[in-house]
Amino acid sequence: MDPINAVAERLGIDQQHLIPYGNTKAKVSLDAIRENGPRGKLVVVTGITPTPAGEGKTTTSIGLTDGLGRLGHKPVVNLREPALGPIFGIKGGGTGGGKARIVPEDEINIHFTGDAHAVGSTHNLLAALVENAVYRNNACDMSPEGITWSRVTDASDRALRQITTGLGGNANSPLRETRFDFITASEIMAILALTSDLDDLRVRLSRIVVGTSRSGDPVSVGDLGLAGPLLAVMRQTIMPNLVQTMEGQPAIVHSGPFGNIAHGCSSIIADRLALGYADIVITEAGFASDLGFEKFMHIKTRQSGLPVSAAVLVASVRALRWHGGVLRRNLAQPNLDAMKAGAGNLVHHINIVRSFGLPVVVALNRFEGDSTEELQAAAAIAQQAGAYATAEYSGFADGGEGGVVLAEAVARAAHDPSVAPDTIDYAYDLDASIEDKVLGLAKRVYGAGSVTWTPDARRRARFFATQGWDKLPICMAKTHLSISHDPTLKGSPSGYAFPVSDIRASVGAGFLYTLAGRIETLPGLPSQPRALAMDVTSDGEIVNL
Amino acid sequence: MDPINAVAERLGIDQQHLIPYGNTKAKVSLDAIRENGPRGKLVVVTGITPTPAGEGKTTTSIGLTDGLGRLGHKPVVNLREPALGPIFGIKGGGTGGGKARIVPEDEINIHFTGDAHAVGSTHNLLAALVENAVYRNNACDMSPEGITWSRVTDASDRALRQITTGLGGNANSPLRETRFDFITASEIMAILALTSDLDDLRVRLSRIVVGTSRSGDPVSVGDLGLAGPLLAVMRQTIMPNLVQTMEGQPAIVHSGPFGNIAHGCSSIIADRLALGYADIVITEAGFASDLGFEKFMHIKTRQSGLPVSAAVLVASVRALRWHGGVLRRNLAQPNLDAMKAGAGNLVHHINIVRSFGLPVVVALNRFEGDSTEELQAAAAIAQQAGAYATAEYSGFADGGEGGVVLAEAVARAAHDPSVAPDTIDYAYDLDASIEDKVLGLAKRVYGAGSVTWTPDARRRARFFATQGWDKLPICMAKTHLSISHDPTLKGSPSGYAFPVSDIRASVGAGFLYTLAGRIETLPGLPSQPRALAMDVTSDGEIVNL
Repeated sequence: MDPINAVAERLGIDQQHLIPYGNTKAKVSLDAIRENGPRGKLVVVTGITPTPAGEGKTTTSIGLTDGLGRLGHKPVVNLREPALGPIFGIKGGGTGGGKARIVPEDEINIHFTGDAHAVGSTHNLLAALVENAVYRNNACDMSPEGITWSRVTDASDRALRQITTGLGGNANSPLRETRFDFITASEIMAILALTSDLDDLRVRLSRIVVGTSRSGDPVSVGDLGLAGPLLAVMRQTIMPNLVQTMEGQPAIVHSGPFGNIAHGCSSIIADRLALGYADIVITEAGFASDLGFEKFMHIKTRQSGLPVSAAVLVASVRALRWHGGVLRRNLAQPNLDAMKAGAGNLVHHINIVRSFGLPVVVALNRFEGDSTEELQAAAAIAQQAGAYATAEYSGFADGGEGGVVLAEAVARAAHDPSVAPDTIDYAYDLDASIEDKVLGLAKRVYGAGSVTWTPDARRRARFFATQGWDKLPICMAKTHLSISHDPTLKGSPSGYAFPVSDIRASVGAGFLYTLAGRIETLPGLPSQPRALAMDVTSDGEIVNL
Repeated sequence: MDPINAVAERLGIDQQHLIPYGNTKAKVSLDAIRENGPRGKLVVVTGITPTPAGEGKTTTSIGLTDGLGRLGHKPVVNLREPALGPIFGIKGGGTGGGKARIVPEDEINIHFTGDAHAVGSTHNLLAALVENAVYRNNACDMSPEGITWSRVTDASDRALRQITTGLGGNANSPLRETRFDFITASEIMAILALTSDLDDLRVRLSRIVVGTSRSGDPVSVGDLGLAGPLLAVMRQTIMPNLVQTMEGQPAIVHSGPFGNIAHGCSSIIADRLALGYADIVITEAGFASDLGFEKFMHIKTRQSGLPVSAAVLVASVRALRWHGGVLRRNLAQPNLDAMKAGAGNLVHHINIVRSFGLPVVVALNRFEGDSTEELQAAAAIAQQAGAYATAEYSGFADGGEGGVVLAEAVARAAHDPSVAPDTIDYAYDLDASIEDKVLGLAKRVYGAGSVTWTPDARRRARFFATQGWDKLPICMAKTHLSISHDPTLKGSPSGYAFPVSDIRASVGAGFLYTLAGRIETLPGLPSQPRALAMDVTSDGEIVNL
C-alpha cells in the first residue's frame, strides 16, 4: 500500500487539501474541487439483474480502474462506503474481491473515516430534538402521533424494526410506536450523497420533513430551527475520502445511501472532485440498470449537471443462466441453452442504458465454469442489441491485467465523439405529474404495460402535489432481483401492471420514493452470522473479515 | 495550535507510533508504551462536592499542566473523552474553559477519533447478536426475558429510556421490554478505560454477562462465542489519543466512562503511555473525591499497579458558601460566615485523600466575587486539616500563568520523599465480603455510621458471591452533589445510615456497582437545548459550541 500522500500526489491533489486518517486514508477538503480546466470523462458502472450473490459490479469497477491504469490512463474509481452491519451478517464487506480490491479493506469496512457514524449521530440527534420539542409543546403544533422521523442504527437488529418508546411514565416522552432504520436508509445519508457544499447541506437538512402538525401541515427541520446543530455534526462528513486500489489507483469512497428507498450512488461531491483530476472517472451505481443507473441519471447527474460519457453494464453468463431458469445449485455448470433463454435480461438492460442516449460497454464478468461458447454467444447477443462493445473481464482472478481489455473498450467509448450524447433522453420531465413520471419509468425501464396505484398512494401523491413536491424526481423502491416489482419474474418480463403500493417524500434529499412491495429498511442477522467466525490477533489483525 | 507531530516529538514519542487524525489529533500505537526507564510521577486531580455548575476540575487540570510547562517540567494531562450528547443539552463540552483548554475543541467534542462511536457500535452489535441467538434458540438456554444487555445511543433521548422491542410479528424478535443507555454508560466504555492491551480486552469482553439462562445461570459473551467480532470493532479504539493544551502541552484524552455506575476515570493505557515520557502526569478523576478519586484508587490504580504520588483537590470559595447554605442565586457574593460553615466539606475531602496515605494539594479555583478574606480563611482551614499545601488558581482567566503557583506546589508534593506513600491504605480488602466492602467505603468515605440493604440487593449480593464475583471491587453509584446518598445533604453529613438499593455486576469491566438511589443512565434534553443556538458558517466553523 502506498502512503495516501503519494496517491494524492500522483493524482495532482495538493497535500494541503488532505486531512489524513492514518497513513492510508484521507479526507479531501472541498477546496480541492476544480471545476474549470481539463475535465475527465464520467463513466457509470451498472449491471444486469443479479443473482442473489451479485454480479461483481464493485469488483469490476475496481479491476476496470486498474486496467485503465495499466494502459496509462489517469483513472479514479468512485464507490459507496460499505455499511458496518452487513459485514457481520450475510453479505460481508463492500471493498471488492479477489485481486480487485480497495485498501485498507478492514478499515474501510469498519469505521472508515466515521462518515456513517456522523450520519447516525445526526439522525438520532434530530430524533431527540424533535421528540423533546413535542414533549415540551414547542414543535409547531405537532403531536407525538405526528412525528414521522425514525431513529437509525448500524446493527442488523430486527428487534428494533418496530418498537414502542416512552414507557416508564411522565419523566420520559409520551408513549409512541416508531422504528429504527439502517443508517444507510437515513435521509441524511441520501442528502450527503446529493449535496454540493455546506450551504447546500444546510438547505437540504432544513427541508427534511420530520412530521405533521395537528392541522395536517408538514413540519420541517427548518420550521423547528434545528439545522445548525445537525450541520455541526455533519460538517466534516461532506469531505470525500481518498483511498487506493490494490494496484495503487486512487479510489474515492464517499456516502452510502440505500439503493431502493434512496438512489444508491456515491456522492456528487466525489464525482466533482475526481473529474477535476482524473482523465476518466469510474463511478458505480447500486443494483442493476433499472435501479441504480436510472437513479444515477434521473436523480444524481440530472441534478449535478455532470455530463456522463458512457456506461459499463456488468453481466455474467452465470446470471443469464439464472434468468434462463437454472436452479441456484446448478449455476456453476455451463448451460448454453439456458443462457440464451435468459439473455433477454441482458438485452433489456442494454436497451435501458441506450434509451438515455449513452453508449454501453458490456463487461462479461467471468466465473469458473463459464464456457467459451456461452461467452461468445452472450457477446454476440449484446452486440446485436446495440452494445458499443463487449469485453470479457477477469479482475477477480487477475487484477488489473484481467481488466485491460475492458479498459480499452471503455476508454474508447468514453472518448468516441461519434457516440457522445448531445443531450440525455430522460424517461420523464420533472414538470410532469407524479403519476406520469412513474408511468414513464414503468414503461421504459421496468418493461411494464401500465401502473396501478393503491388509493392511499394516490391520495398521498395528491397531497404531495399541494406542497409542490410533485416537481421532485421519483426514486423507485422495488426489488433488485427482477426488472419488475416481483422477484420471481426473471429474464425480461413485459406488459404487466406495475403496482405502486405507497409513496413517501424525502424532501431534504430531493426525491419522492414510491414503493412497489415491501422494502425492509433494517436487516436482521442470519442463523449463522459471519460475525461468529471473526477474530482479532494479538497484533491487531482481523481474521475472517 | 502546533502540528500534532511536533507535540509528540517534544514529548519524545517516535513519529512511527502516531496514527494521525487530521493534523492536530493522533492515535498513539500501544507499541509506544515504555514501562522501563525513567518514570513520571502520577498526580490525580479530584475535587470537593461541587455545586451543580461544577468546580472546574478539568480546567484546573489543564491550567495546572500549562503551569508545570511554564516551570520547565515535562507534563502530560490525561482526561476523559467528552460525550457527544451533553454538548447539545445543558452541560456543554468537556475540553476545559477560558484560557485553560485543550484543542481542537470542536473536534474533540464532536466525533474526535471515533472512540465513542466504536464503543456504541460494539455495544449494539452485541445486542443484535445476543437477540439473534435467542431468536434462533441458540443462546445457552437464554429466553428473551433473560436478556439483560441494553442498547446505547449518543443522543440525549429520554424516549428510549424504556421501550418495547420486537413488535410487528414473527419476522422480528420476540416482544421484550428493554432500554437504551448513554454510550458513556456502556460496560464496554468502562472496559476500554480499564484494559491494558488487545489480549486483555478479549478477556474482559468475554466476561461480559449479557443475561441469564432459564436455569438461572449467567450467560457471558464468551459462552456465546462473540468476543471476536466485538474485538474487530474495538481494536483501534484502545489506542490513546494525543492532542494539546492551548499552550502546547501534550494532552492524552482517552475513554469516557460514567462517574457513577462506572469509575469515571480516563484510561489505564493513557496513564501507562504518559508515565513513560512525562516527568509528571496530571490525570483527572470524575466528580468529587468520594466518587472519582475513591474509584481511581480502588478500581483503577489498584488494578494497574501504577503508583500515585499526590492528589490535587479542587475547591472553590463559591462551593463552600453553597455547602454553608447560600442559595444558588446568591453564590457570586462574598460570604465569609457561610464559607466557614460549609468548610466541613473541604475538610472531609482532605480526610478522604489523606486516609489513603497520599499528600493532598488544595487548589482554590478563583471565581469572580471571591474575597481575599475568604480565600485566606479557606487556605488556613485546609492547612489545619492536613493539606500538604494550598494554592490559589486562576487558569480560566490567566491560562498557564494562573496555574504556576499551583504547579509549583504540586511538583513539590509529587517529588517530596517525606510524604511519598509507601503503601496505599485502602478502605477495604478485595477478599472482604461485599457487605464489608460497602461498609468500609460508607464509613471512611461517605461519613456514614451504617449501611442498610434492601432485601433484593442483599439477595443479589449473595448470588454474586456464588459466582465468585464478590472478589471484585465496589463501584458506588450515588449522587455527586453530596458526600452521602442524598443530594440535599450539603457540607459534611455524618453518622447517617447509607442505603444500598440495588447491586449489579460489570463482570467484564471488573467491578460490582451498588446503587444508592436512582441513577439516570440516559439523560434527556432541557426545554432550551444548547443545540438551538448552534450553527456552522460556510467556512465550516462551528458557532456557539
